[in-house]
This record gives sequence, C-alpha cells and structure tokens, in this order.
Amino acid sequence: MRQVGSVLWPKLRILQIYGANTGVGKTIFSSVLCRAFKKHIQKVHYLKPVSTGPLNEADDHHMSTFGSNVTSQCLYQFDEPISPHLAVRSAAKPLSDAEVLEGVYRELKSYANGDEGVSVVETAGGVLSPSPSGSSQADLYRPLRLPTLLVGDYNLGGIGTTISAWESLRIRGYDVNHVALFAEDRYDNHTYLKEYFHDRGVSAFSIAPPPERVPSLEEDTQAMLAYYQNSSETAEVQGFIGRFLAEHDQRISKIRSLPEQAEKVIWHPFMQHTERSKDTITAWDSAYGDFFQSFTTKRDVATNALSKAEKSLLQPAFDGSASWWTQGLGHGNPQLAIVAAHAAGRYGHVMFGGAIHEPALQLAQTLVERPENPRLNRVFYSDNGSTGMEVAVKMALRASVNRFLGKRSADHRKLDIRILGLKNSYHGDTMGTMDCSEPSIYNEKVEWYKGRGIWLDFPTIKMRQGQWLVEPFDSRDESASKSLSSETKYFDTIDDIFDFSNRQQEHQAYTSYIRAKLLESVEKHGVSFGALIIEPMLLGAGGMMFADPLYQKVLVEVAREFHDDRSWLQQEYDASQQESNDTNWAGMPVIFDEVFTGLYRLGRFSAASFLGVHPDIVVNAKLLTGGLLPLCTTTTSEAIFSAFLSNDKTDALLHGHSYTAHPIGCSVANESLKTLTKLDTDGTWEAYKKDWTSQSTSTAATRHRNKNKIWSMWSSSFLASASHKNSVDNVFAIGSVLALTLKDPNGSGYASTAATGLRDKLLAGSGQDDAVIHSRVLGNVLYLMAALNTPGKTLQDIQEIVLKALK
Amino acid sequence: MRQVGSVLWPKLRILQIYGANTGVGKTIFSSVLCRAFKKHIQKVHYLKPVSTGPLNEADDHHMSTFGSNVTSQCLYQFDEPISPHLAVRSAAKPLSDAEVLEGVYRELKSYANGDEGVSVVETAGGVLSPSPSGSSQADLYRPLRLPTLLVGDYNLGGIGTTISAWESLRIRGYDVNHVALFAEDRYDNHTYLKEYFHDRGVSAFSIAPPPERVPSLEEDTQAMLAYYQNSSETAEVQGFIGRFLAEHDQRISKIRSLPEQAEKVIWHPFMQHTERSKDTITAWDSAYGDFFQSFTTKRDVATNALSKAEKSLLQPAFDGSASWWTQGLGHGNPQLAIVAAHAAGRYGHVMFGGAIHEPALQLAQTLVERPENPRLNRVFYSDNGSTGMEVAVKMALRASVNRFLGKRSADHRKLDIRILGLKNSYHGDTMGTMDCSEPSIYNEKVEWYKGRGIWLDFPTIKMRQGQWLVEPFDSRDESASKSLSSETKYFDTIDDIFDFSNRQQEHQAYTSYIRAKLLESVEKHGVSFGALIIEPMLLGAGGMMFADPLYQKVLVEVAREFHDDRSWLQQEYDASQQESNDTNWAGMPVIFDEVFTGLYRLGRFSAASFLGVHPDIVVNAKLLTGGLLPLCTTTTSEAIFSAFLSNDKTDALLHGHSYTAHPIGCSVANESLKTLTKLDTDGTWEAYKKDWTSQSTSTAATRHRNKNKIWSMWSSSFLASASHKNSVDNVFAIGSVLALTLKDPNGSGYASTAATGLRDKLLAGSGQDDAVIHSRVLGNVLYLMAALNTPGKTLQDIQEIVLKALK
Repeated sequence: MRQVGSVLWPKLRILQIYGANTGVGKTIFSSVLCRAFKKHIQKVHYLKPVSTGPLNEADDHHMSTFGSNVTSQCLYQFDEPISPHLAVRSAAKPLSDAEVLEGVYRELKSYANGDEGVSVVETAGGVLSPSPSGSSQADLYRPLRLPTLLVGDYNLGGIGTTISAWESLRIRGYDVNHVALFAEDRYDNHTYLKEYFHDRGVSAFSIAPPPERVPSLEEDTQAMLAYYQNSSETAEVQGFIGRFLAEHDQRISKIRSLPEQAEKVIWHPFMQHTERSKDTITAWDSAYGDFFQSFTTKRDVATNALSKAEKSLLQPAFDGSASWWTQGLGHGNPQLAIVAAHAAGRYGHVMFGGAIHEPALQLAQTLVERPENPRLNRVFYSDNGSTGMEVAVKMALRASVNRFLGKRSADHRKLDIRILGLKNSYHGDTMGTMDCSEPSIYNEKVEWYKGRGIWLDFPTIKMRQGQWLVEPFDSRDESASKSLSSETKYFDTIDDIFDFSNRQQEHQAYTSYIRAKLLESVEKHGVSFGALIIEPMLLGAGGMMFADPLYQKVLVEVAREFHDDRSWLQQEYDASQQESNDTNWAGMPVIFDEVFTGLYRLGRFSAASFLGVHPDIVVNAKLLTGGLLPLCTTTTSEAIFSAFLSNDKTDALLHGHSYTAHPIGCSVANESLKTLTKLDTDGTWEAYKKDWTSQSTSTAATRHRNKNKIWSMWSSSFLASASHKNSVDNVFAIGSVLALTLKDPNGSGYASTAATGLRDKLLAGSGQDDAVIHSRVLGNVLYLMAALNTPGKTLQDIQEIVLKALK
Repeated sequence: MRQVGSVLWPKLRILQIYGANTGVGKTIFSSVLCRAFKKHIQKVHYLKPVSTGPLNEADDHHMSTFGSNVTSQCLYQFDEPISPHLAVRSAAKPLSDAEVLEGVYRELKSYANGDEGVSVVETAGGVLSPSPSGSSQADLYRPLRLPTLLVGDYNLGGIGTTISAWESLRIRGYDVNHVALFAEDRYDNHTYLKEYFHDRGVSAFSIAPPPERVPSLEEDTQAMLAYYQNSSETAEVQGFIGRFLAEHDQRISKIRSLPEQAEKVIWHPFMQHTERSKDTITAWDSAYGDFFQSFTTKRDVATNALSKAEKSLLQPAFDGSASWWTQGLGHGNPQLAIVAAHAAGRYGHVMFGGAIHEPALQLAQTLVERPENPRLNRVFYSDNGSTGMEVAVKMALRASVNRFLGKRSADHRKLDIRILGLKNSYHGDTMGTMDCSEPSIYNEKVEWYKGRGIWLDFPTIKMRQGQWLVEPFDSRDESASKSLSSETKYFDTIDDIFDFSNRQQEHQAYTSYIRAKLLESVEKHGVSFGALIIEPMLLGAGGMMFADPLYQKVLVEVAREFHDDRSWLQQEYDASQQESNDTNWAGMPVIFDEVFTGLYRLGRFSAASFLGVHPDIVVNAKLLTGGLLPLCTTTTSEAIFSAFLSNDKTDALLHGHSYTAHPIGCSVANESLKTLTKLDTDGTWEAYKKDWTSQSTSTAATRHRNKNKIWSMWSSSFLASASHKNSVDNVFAIGSVLALTLKDPNGSGYASTAATGLRDKLLAGSGQDDAVIHSRVLGNVLYLMAALNTPGKTLQDIQEIVLKALK
C-alpha cells in the first residue's frame, strides 16, 4: 500500500525551509546553508518542489548559479510570480497535494542512496501560503514532517509574523528547532527573536542581509558570490550546521532507544510483560490521518542490512484499531488542534462545581437532543468510559432502590442488588464496572472483583460463506438451547435481520426465554435487579461479537415489563402510574454502554437506534472527542435525576472528578460532533451506503427502509469474499468496524491465537517501503476500524491486502 | 482587589482591531468602521492605547481628521515610528503591561456611562508585535479578551500571515469573529480568505484599498474623505456593522441564559440539586491567570439596577479552589496551549498498547527520577486520580496475595483482604477506591459501597492563637486516648514539628499505639492487609486535615515491620530476604495518594519527602498537567511490577483506558513539570521561603535544615493574625494551600455550615468593580489555594480581604 509518510533515512539529512512570510530570504538562506553544508558533507541537494516566476528567476536556477556544485531540482515550475494556487489555474491540469508529496518523496528517496548526504527542501511563500491545490504549505508537507528551519521576517512587523508562523507550524506537529533571519539593524528583529526562541528551546541565528543589487550582471554576481562565501563561513552559520548534523544523529539514536527505554520505565496496559522486549514495543514518532509513523527494532535491523538504497527508519502503519477505538477524524487534525488550543487559551481548566461554561453547555444540549430519545435530558461529565459507567451504575442503583424501598431506607444493605446483562459484556476496568461483567480473564484475578450480575447468553449476527445469519446461543447455557430453537436462521440481506416486523416468531421465543431466565434468577437466587446494562449491537472488548438487535430489543422490553412478577419487591410499584409517563423508567433502569458503539462508530449518532429502543441512561466516550483526548458523558432522564433530589445534601450524587467537563475536551467534542454530523449529511458516505443498498433485493419494503439502512465503510463484496476464505469462520461489518472471525480448532475466546498469524502478516507488509497495517486481535477475531473520514482508496488498498493475506 | 479582567458592558460595544501584520491598514479600517458605526450609534469612541511615530501621523490624530465626530484618545505616544518595545527605551520610564491595561480599562469604563456606545480599540503593529514591555500585543490585552476584528494582509504572502495571525489569536483564547482586508486584485487574497474563514464560521469582508496619496494636502484630504465616505457605506461594511451589533446583544443574552440553560441539562458533581437554581450557578465566560471571568444572575440584577455608570456583566473572581486543586500555572496559559496544540498536531491520540512515544517516555522518566525514591521505576498511565488509585490498589493487592499465598493460588477469595488507612481519607469516586475509605457521607449511600479497610485516627498539626501545635486524636476512638497522651504538644516553629529527631518520645508512643491497633485488627477481625494507603501530609476532600507527619512516618514503619506478627499468614514470608533488598516492599505495599499533594502543591515535587519515607506506589494527577486536562500516573517499584509476571497472560495487569498516556496530556505534563521545576530553582519562591525562615528561632539546627524548610506562599504573619481571630479555631498553610478552620458550636465535619458565611462574604466582594474571591468550603474549613505562579501582590490583596472578613 503506497502511503507517503514521515521519512528518516540514517544517512540523508533533510532540512525543510519555511518562510515566516514571502520575501524574507528563504532562497538566500537555502543557498548559504547548501554552501555551508558542502564543507562537511560531499553530497548536497537542493529541492524546490513548487516554484512560481520566470525560469531564470526560479529558485533552483538561482541555486545552481550560487550553490557551489549543489544538485538542484525543481519539480513543478509556473511562470507567473504569484501564489501557486493561482499559478496552477493557468496550467494544463490541476496539481493535487498528493502528487506534489509523492514527487518530493520519490526525489528524496532517490537521494537516499547510501552515501552521506544533505537535502534542503524549500517551500514556496510563507508557512500557510496556499499550495497548488489551495491547502497550505504546512499542510501539504505535513505527512513528511521534515525537520524544519523557519526563516524569520526581518521587516517592520516581522517579530509578530515570525512568531505566528512558528506557532502555525507547531500546531501542525512540526519540530521547528531552528529560526534564522537577516540581521537588519533598524528594527532589530533578530535580537528580540533570538532571545524569544532561546527561551523556548529553539536556536535562532542571523546573517547579514544581502548586498544591494547593482545593474551590472557581472558585478552583481561577484557581489553575491562574495556575500554567499562570507555568510556561509560565519560562526553563527557554522554553529547551526554543527547543531543540525548532530541533531539528526541524536534523533536517530533517540528513536532507536525508545523501545529499550520504554521497557525500563513503562508499565503497559493489558500486557503480560514476560512477552515484552524492546523488539516487541513499537515507537510512534508521529501520526497523520489514518497512519502512524512507526519505528520498530525489527525494521531497524532490516534497514541496517542494506548498504545501498537505504530504508527509512520510519514506516507508515495504518492505525487498524483506530487507536483503541477512539480515532474518528484522523491523527494530527489541525482543526481539532486549533480548537483545543483555543479552549486552553480561553479557559485552561475551570472547575465545574456549581458552574457552567459555553462548551459544556453546548455539548450537553447536543447529547440530549441528537439521539432523539425523549428520556434523555441530563448530562453528567466524567473522564473515561469506565468512570462514566460507574456514574451510570450509581444512578441506576439509587433510582431502583429508592423506588422499591423508599427514599430514606437503609435497607438496601440487605438486598443482593445486581445488574442484568449479557455474557461477554465489558464496561471498563475500574472495580465497580468490572463487577458489572461476568467473571472472565479480565477480572477474575482482581482480588476485590465480585461479579454482581445475572448474565444471559445471546444470539449473534454474522456473515458466513456469503450468507447473512443469526446464530443461536452457544452451548454454555443449556437452558438456552432448550427454550429456543437452536437452528441458525438465514437472511437474504442484512436489512432483513433489522426488519423486526418480519421476525415475530423469534420475538416471541426471545420474550419467553428471557422472562423465564429472569424469574429463575429471582426465585433461585433471590436477587434484586438495579439495572439492565448492554452494549447495543456490538460487544467490543468481550470479543467483537455482534448481538442480534432483536434479542437486545426484547431484553429491554422484558426488563421494563418485569415489575409484574417482581416477587422480591418489598413494596409494590404502581405500574399504572408508570405507564402514564413514557419518559419514566419501568422495571429497571436501562443503561446503554455506547462508549464504543455510539457517535457514528457504527454509522449512526446513536447505537440505540439500531434496536429502536430508548434507554434511560447512555454513556458516551472514545469518539466523543474525535480521537484526541479523554472525556466521557453519562446522559440520563429526569426520572433518574429526581431519585437524588431531597432536602438532604447527602442524598445527592456525591461523585465528581477534578477535570469534570474540562473545556478543552468539551470544545473538541463539539467540533468533532459537528464534523461527524457534516460527514453524515454532506454525502461523504453516500458511496458506502449505495454499495450496501445494491446488495439488497429491491423489494418495496427494502426501498422504504433505505433511510435506516445498515451500511459499512467496508465494502459488501469484500465482506462476501472474505467470508468464503478457508481460514475464516465468519465476518461482520457495520459503520467503520470490520470483524474477521477466524476458525480455531482449539476454540475461540481471548486465549485463542488463531488471529495472530494474520495480524503479524499484515504488520510485516510487503517488506518494501509500502505502508503496513497495524491491527489488534481479540482471541480469534481480527478487527479493523477506520476513522469516519478515512479515504475510500485507503480502505480499498487494505481490503485487497487483507484478502491476499487470508488463506 | 483591583484586577483588570474581561469586560462586558451591556450598552458599550467594544471592538478590538488587530493587524495580521504592520501596514495592513488597521487605522484606515478603524476610521471606516467608526464612520460606519456613527450611522447607527450616536456615541463612537476610538482608542489607540499605544502609538509610535510623530504626533501628526499618529493614529488618533488621523482618526480625528477623518473620523467624523468620533472621540479619539491615545494613551501612550512615542515619536519614533518603530515597535513600541524599542520606542519605550528612549522614554523616561518603562511601561508595564499592567499600566497599559489599567489605562485601557479606565478609559473604557469612562465610556460605559449608560448611553449606547461603540468603542474601537486599535492595537499596534501585528498580533504578536511586541508591547512596550516586550510581551506581545495579543498577550498584553488578553485579560480584557475583547471581541476582535483581524485586519488581514492584502500583500503578496498575506494569505499565510493572515491565517497565522488568526491562529495566534485563537491560541490566546480570543473570539475572532471577523476578518477584514483590502480587496487588492493582483494577489486576490480577499477571495481566498473569505472562503477560508467562512468555512470556519468567521465572517470576512473587504473594502477597496485607499487611493494613492497625492502631494497636495487639500486634494489628498478630499480624496481620503471621499474614500472613507464611500467605504463606510458599502454593503459589506454595513453587513459587518449589523452582525457586530447583533453579536454583542447575542453574547449578552447567551451569557445571561447560561445558568438557566445549565439548570435544564447539566447534572453537576457533588451537588444536591434541590439547592440549585439559575441564581446559584456561576457562568465562566473565560479565565486568565488566577481569575475567572464570571457571570451570575445576582450580579446581573445589580447591574440592571444602575442606570448610569454601568457595571460590566463579567467580574473577575479569584479561583480560590485552584479549580478543584488542579491549577498550577494559571488559566489561559499560552505556553501550555501551544504545547497541547503541538502534541495534537504531531500525534492526536496514539494507542499505547505495546507502544511508546516520546512525551510518555519523558514523563515516565521524570516521575521515576525526581522523587529521589529508589523504589520507583515503573509508570502506569490512566486518566484521573480515581482510576490511578484503582490501579494502585490492584497492584498492591496482587503483590500481597502473591507473596503470602503463592502466585497461582485462588485462595485469595477466602481472605478478607483490606487496606490499612487513616480516617477521613479520600481516594476518589469510583467504587473500588471508595471502598478504600471509611464509611462517610460520600460513600455510605452508594449501594455497592463496601468499606474494605481498617482506618486509624491520627493527630493533626495546626496553628491556634499564633501557636504551632500537634493535637491528639479526637474522641472517636477510645483506645487512642488510652494508649497515647491526650495532651496537645506545642512547638516553637513549624520546622520543629518536622524535626523528628527531637520527637523520640512521640515516635515511641505512636509506634506502640499503631502496633496494637494492627494486632487487634488481625486478632479480632481476622483481616489480611493488602496495602497501606495514605495521603501524605494533607487529607484533602476528607476535610483539609493536616496529619502529623511523624505519625504518618511511623505508620509506614509499623506497616513494613508487620510481618513479625503476621498471625494470619498462610505461608510465612522470609523476612531476612526482604531486608537484604531495600527496594522491595515489606509488610504490605505502601501506597501514597499524592493526587492532590504531590508535584509542588505543597512546595515540593514529592509530598512523601515531608515524611522522609519511600512509598512503594505513588499516584499523581491534578497538578500533573499544570491544570489543563486530565491525566494520572501510578508509579511503582520493580517488586510490585514483578508480581504480575508469569507465562500466563491472564496474570498480567489487565487494566487500561483508551486514552492511556495520551500525547497531549503527557506533553503538557512535561512542560508543566519543567516550568514548576524552574519556579522551584530560579528564586521565584525565595521571598516566601525567607518569610517563613525569619519566624524560626535561629538555632544551628534550624539553619542546617533550611534546605528542607517548611514554607508557604501564604505569609506567616497573615497566618498568625488569622489564627487570633475570634471566629477561627485554627489555621494551617503549606506550599500553595491555606486552610482556615472556623469554630462551629454544632461540631465540625462535612455537614457544618460554619464556613459558608465567610465564603459568601468573599464572593460578594466590595460591591464595586473589584475582583471577588471564589472559594470552596469543606464543612467548617474554608481553604484557599494559589497557582504556583500567582503574583505575590494578588496573595497580599487576598490576605488583607480575608483578615477583614474574618470576625
């Protein structure tokens, strides 16, 4: 898979020259530095990717006149001396950022031929001057993230423009270790800027401005040559050269040492560290869009083995887990970075006890309104999915106990209050939420773990051999196979699975089964239910299992009607009153853990909408900030909220975190949700939706349902092909999520290693400079997840690679 | 307390004009807009705070020539047409940002006299051009955070400089809703920029560039007058005027509606909502340095009552809780904002499973090295103090159980494993950490709460009536008063309390007492101890109680020797082996919850250093990011780490959060710790330290201890004065924390309301435009907390106000 990413060839040092403004002397600095480099490194290149203005004035021409045997190259030249985005208009065809980037990459790669070298890459105009496509210089070259020197502005006003330009580069993730400018004495910008940047760990140096041009070409040339000669030999310039060359080596030794250093001080999450060594730790140098720029010692060894045609130490790797399911709008997204910085600059963090700020209010209003769930009207903020679920559980338990025992009773200590849920559920790693999941390898060795639930088996949906189906409960629960047909049900289209009106028989069977299970729990074990908790549609960490949505819907229905047979009630609840108010909860509060599945991960704002039910409490996190930083919300109903109201302060929900509703998180969330909503409505996903529609049979009912169709960014034909592979048991995809379940003769589950071979194959890649795929497995399931704006071309490439890799 | 903050007078609209560069036409735009405003608003002012260049060319002169009856004013005028920071050098005396800001504030306030008006405030040079003091324009005026129009750059290169300037304003928290520039056609910047800003929700408009200047003064003036006349009447300019005037009203109605809207959708932390109404919710419009810019309906009513001399709807309020103990380096800190943005641009979030990135490694290394605790060498990341404590508890329990039961035993389910701790401890709100605290109003109504500890009483340190003392246990625990002297011990200086070498007798008494308590726990209740958990020095949420550090030290000692009498051991642990390795834990793992007290909150990097002991596990959060966003670390020893090593994946610590070690948090933490360390070493705190030294008697021993002296940002004389007030029971201060414990005849504790009167008095302020103090109370304790860079003058002001307010 071709993907231009950040490059780091050990022997080729690259310096990218940005200007704080146009006309600040980028080309003169490039010439001086090329000349200065020549004293240390034999092979010096100069590359001007895009140049505007007549050829003899073009920068690379200039460079070859004055650059003292420097190889120079211009990739795209336009005659008019105007901004590239205007110049390109008169050209034969448009010039995309990808083309320029690919050209620069090829050119640099051709320099990286094994000899020591330096390449100076000069940009056009200022830092944010338009690229030929109309984006900016800094955005155009960002994927390469080359070490950067900023040429500062020596003119009146240049202090401000220089610092602003530096800030714009920083926001875009550049390391700008050097600033240089002409030592113009009237405004004395260089004195101010040297001190300013020194305080920020950036070295700044100056050279004299060039001599005034004279009419005689010969004299002018002589004067300029003398100027270049002198300038390139000053102590300041030589000091820069020394620092720059050393920095390159330091950067390489630093990145090489990251895994080893990490081994010494980092305790990684979810990892048996006897399996860890420096060779199994991946270093992220940076990330952009869908790709990490990664370094591994394995790659390093392969690189060292080659004497000629060096490999870059960094390799683009598709972020196949969407960075643990968080990523939604691409890494290094400058739009989100600026929003985050603005909130930091406007507020920092401001305490939320009895207070409000605009971003928190706006986000709360969105989360209450967008799911179209009349029950939701209150938002409680916390920091991650696990804390948000703790809050949800506290809310639900209190509401339940209050209703059934009366508000001020202390009798709840006598009750065995449990939650109702599904097997394989997962709600987080704090101990309170662990208690909501059945005993499993995640929690059973935690000394204080005490599973406090009744967990039911559930049927799953999948595609096997090109065929959509609902598979019944597995064999763990005998009563399930007794009460339900154990036959697999087949469906023509995935939409038919979601058309509950045609599944009356299963609806009834599910209802009877769940009712019986609940009664049994109450009668046999004497438990009280404080909440129903489910992950709608998709049980993530428990193994990427797709639950039959009809079953989950029925589970909610039965939980809500369950007061009829609530034999454990100390005080009967008035059902008639309940039914009169359809935003009040019934039976038990219904909590939807949408931490993973909500906010467009599955293609819709609300994952509950797949089930067609309205939960009483919804928890969102992960995608909430588009994949930038932690934030969580627990959204709930007035009925739950009012359970904490009294004249006694200690009846309140005495829960809170220091950074509750931190403005950066709320602001980024608002921007992310706005952007995601735009993707939902501006036609970006139309091609995916169309692809999934065409595989439906075109009945009237299907057409009618088109608005609520199931679709995925992963193509329907890819899914069918993958499902026919010998090694594959079944597949599923919805929204941005793809799950490939591999056959494992030794059984499935977290301990299975059936998928690790595929994972390793995808990570190894072609062995060339192509991008690889970084993925995570859960037992015998390998899943892949896209951001919601991943380009279709990237998905196509990945699908091809996956199909080839699957036996 | 005088403090210039953000202003919002209902009838005075203010527009601040920034330039993307110098020479882009700020003054011309100011003139055009003043003229345009005049058509709608009778009273139009023009203010140029700082002007450079000869008087007849000065901007306000220009304005009065062309501005059509606009009142104009220049506060500071320098003759040389150079940057203000250079111009001021030849002036009689330096000009501080505070002086300029105060001048602008006074001037604006004088305009806000009750009639409808507009004030246009023009800055000098570009956005980041130096102010007279050498800071930048944008930083100088940031406290006012006025609505801003950015004049874009119409020159070649101006697209880039305009966008960069806009980004620099955004980073500093400005709302820049408008961009304007000359419609220069060759480079056509205005076409590009209008589209660019439109996509970002910013309106941009253009006017024709001014006519060429002509030599004849009369003709020139005529031409310019005609130009101004025409320009001010264009549809684009009139469109802007309409939007700007409407925006002002919208901003006011928005801020006025925030409390009411919040009431509808926000579920606040730690609040009994029957006590909440729109009148008790404070809206933060923004924050800067130590001050919120706050709006309350109460203030609004007061404002409306005044017909003349309007009050600003916004009022500066000192952030007296340091935003729930997080704030360390001031709100709206641009340095932290840029670091956050850089990390967002370089990485976004990158998943941390088996991976590493530079910011996470650097932070881990700092946290392992800086506490000078040889036990610490592994860092586990999570999102907040509560999750970090869950991790700490999981670590400690496993290590304990493994050692005493053998690694693969499942017998731990039979043990009643508890933690050892102090009464009034608080470790977070997730249920696992709640279980580490004694039953209290925070947790006892949580249905799943199950206190799992043995909690001891402890002696506290305080100043009463000017006298330092250690107060014995309160009466709750009878065995305490039996085994320990119940007399209060008095000390000459606070340093004497920390000089444990002179407290041998108490050391012995404490040791005997704690030993007895532990044996009793084991013998009577048959518990096993999985960890000792304490908040060193200061028990925060439990009531701002300062524990006797000697007692906490002894508690650690006894916990560590406790294997000698470990009668509950199923398998005796080899003590001799333990003693040979001083980084291994003994007795039980010792967890220090430094979430609140660590990282310079109390003046030192490590709060453990006050006790002179080396915990096995340390948890840090809150100040970790300087007060910007959530991040938590659990740092521990190799011995604890190795308890999870085996060939079985399920023995690993299977805990993790999606945003584990998110690069923004780690980067900001690195920058914060660097800055805090700089404050520690560059002499910033010397005056505080000196103040606290002089109150010591000057014995040789004291001088010797000076390096490790106890000090606070709150002055020792203030403390003494406060302690003599009638309403005050006792006081304490250390580092940035001040606690005032008020007398309450009805008893202390969370339910006490003794301190609310003081809190309300501080919040009411003088009733004038002065800043008020926003504080939080815990029962009968009112505490105040500074950032670590709060100016001394601010602290002095607050101390004076508090002394006046105390009865």
